[in-house]
Amino acid sequence: MDILLCGSFDDNERDAWLAELQRALPQARWHMSATAENAGLITAAVVANPPAGLLQGLPNLRLIQSLWAGVDRLLSDPSLPDVPVARMVDPTMSAAMAETALWATLSLHRGFYDYARQQHACDWRQLPQRRADEIQVTLLGMGQMGRTCAQRLVTQGYRVTGWKLRSGAAEGVALEHGMDALWPLLACSDIVINLLPLTPQTGDLLDRRFFEALRPGAGLVNLARGGHLVEADLLQALECGQVGHAVLDVFRSEPLPAEHPFWKHPQVTVLPHIAAATDMRGAARIVAVNLQALRDGESLHDLVERSRGY
Amino acid sequence: MDILLCGSFDDNERDAWLAELQRALPQARWHMSATAENAGLITAAVVANPPAGLLQGLPNLRLIQSLWAGVDRLLSDPSLPDVPVARMVDPTMSAAMAETALWATLSLHRGFYDYARQQHACDWRQLPQRRADEIQVTLLGMGQMGRTCAQRLVTQGYRVTGWKLRSGAAEGVALEHGMDALWPLLACSDIVINLLPLTPQTGDLLDRRFFEALRPGAGLVNLARGGHLVEADLLQALECGQVGHAVLDVFRSEPLPAEHPFWKHPQVTVLPHIAAATDMRGAARIVAVNLQALRDGESLHDLVERSRGY
Repeated sequence: MDILLCGSFDDNERDAWLAELQRALPQARWHMSATAENAGLITAAVVANPPAGLLQGLPNLRLIQSLWAGVDRLLSDPSLPDVPVARMVDPTMSAAMAETALWATLSLHRGFYDYARQQHACDWRQLPQRRADEIQVTLLGMGQMGRTCAQRLVTQGYRVTGWKLRSGAAEGVALEHGMDALWPLLACSDIVINLLPLTPQTGDLLDRRFFEALRPGAGLVNLARGGHLVEADLLQALECGQVGHAVLDVFRSEPLPAEHPFWKHPQVTVLPHIAAATDMRGAARIVAVNLQALRDGESLHDLVERSRGY
Repeated sequence: MDILLCGSFDDNERDAWLAELQRALPQARWHMSATAENAGLITAAVVANPPAGLLQGLPNLRLIQSLWAGVDRLLSDPSLPDVPVARMVDPTMSAAMAETALWATLSLHRGFYDYARQQHACDWRQLPQRRADEIQVTLLGMGQMGRTCAQRLVTQGYRVTGWKLRSGAAEGVALEHGMDALWPLLACSDIVINLLPLTPQTGDLLDRRFFEALRPGAGLVNLARGGHLVEADLLQALECGQVGHAVLDVFRSEPLPAEHPFWKHPQVTVLPHIAAATDMRGAARIVAVNLQALRDGESLHDLVERSRGY
């Protein structure tokens, strides 16, 4: 089995991925680029944000397997071959995401960002304490990551509602769907956590209209994509108190430029896109399962529906 | 039933407590001080750090009920009458403590204190990510609070070991006891959380010897009492890297003096004794249950063993 490994990673990263993938699938032949000699042999491509156009000219390609959970940039390449695309769905990554979501929720609920500001000012002052069951957390996006986050937050006693664009079901958590249901939900939310996929429908969702619909002073946590957030609208919402504090892991431009106002904003927590790093070992095993299924003619996992964009 | 309510709270606090206690026990008569007229009537004292000597001269006193979980200062009063002392054991408070312990654990495990420092320096840099099951958390003290913390941490996937001075049992968590077992446990701990009661045996436990026994770079979380920690020894352990970061909610002197080096230390998180505030409503109901038991001659709850100090 001949597999192309390509992406926007540096040499060290690529070598680390190759080592894990070889360990997980020792019988495969791995190619780091497509050439006149190997193009006809390649049946699958394992990719991490590959440069646009790179997957053209592979006549026998039957699967594009992303190493990343988000495939918005991959799908935006108009020259992407019309073969099945699988995205990374990794329980280890979902657990890491749930840790970040829980940390941000605890920090907002219990005032730990405020206490950090107070420490800088040598200010000893106790703030009111609320119980977890007095805090409404709304999760936007209820894929595997959203469901894992919801379960962890419910276990800690929070009132949790999941929201997604289309109808569906989720175990042990209240679920709403559709734009009409979003606005009343925001009005009673203390904390909103975004885990949506980035699609034409969800891009720019976190905008002025969204912030005006929030309960004043709510906390915003964006762990999904920078493209969901209209940054200027957030700055204005923080200014007027409509958003109390924002925890941002993703940005329009990454790394976040040094002159960006988020860096020094007292009500913004900046994280360098670390909410859920891919665990190479686990991810390589998940890729191997899908590639073996391809080889054996069995059904593939975690396929993307191109029309909906995730 | 005549009850004395006294403590080191200000008038607003006392009035708030009185309102909740009256709601929970409407048939009782509450006294804010002992006088020649009422001293003989008073059968119980509800106290929050009362000035030493204040409970003398009450011939019919049969119960001292603390509004606080920690009774170290109360028991250190040599003039304390020889009647049963009950301390506050409140599930709402244990839940709040577990939230703080979980927040500190997530922050240390996932590097969120480091990322906060990086944000101050506009430094976009991703740190290695470990899984929760690779992190050994050791909990010192396995009373109701310790057990609640342990359960929450286990639910999040951490490796948790509880430690206490004397032998005992705890559900669903590994348990060690005695000083001999402490040192090897510290050597394999990534995070140590102190929830011990302050007694002559546990005072100054967190000292140079303790820090030298730790796995280098471990995180320390003190949510119990300032008297457990030898502050100068911690500063030295931070200096030489033996302790990586400390989260401190309690101090020898509170409020923490403005000139104290902890305030500005980059590896110390200072919290103003807020790990678990008493929830007045819940606490008043718990007090009412014990006072009704006293009135009806039934068995009292959460009594302190004076000889062990908690």
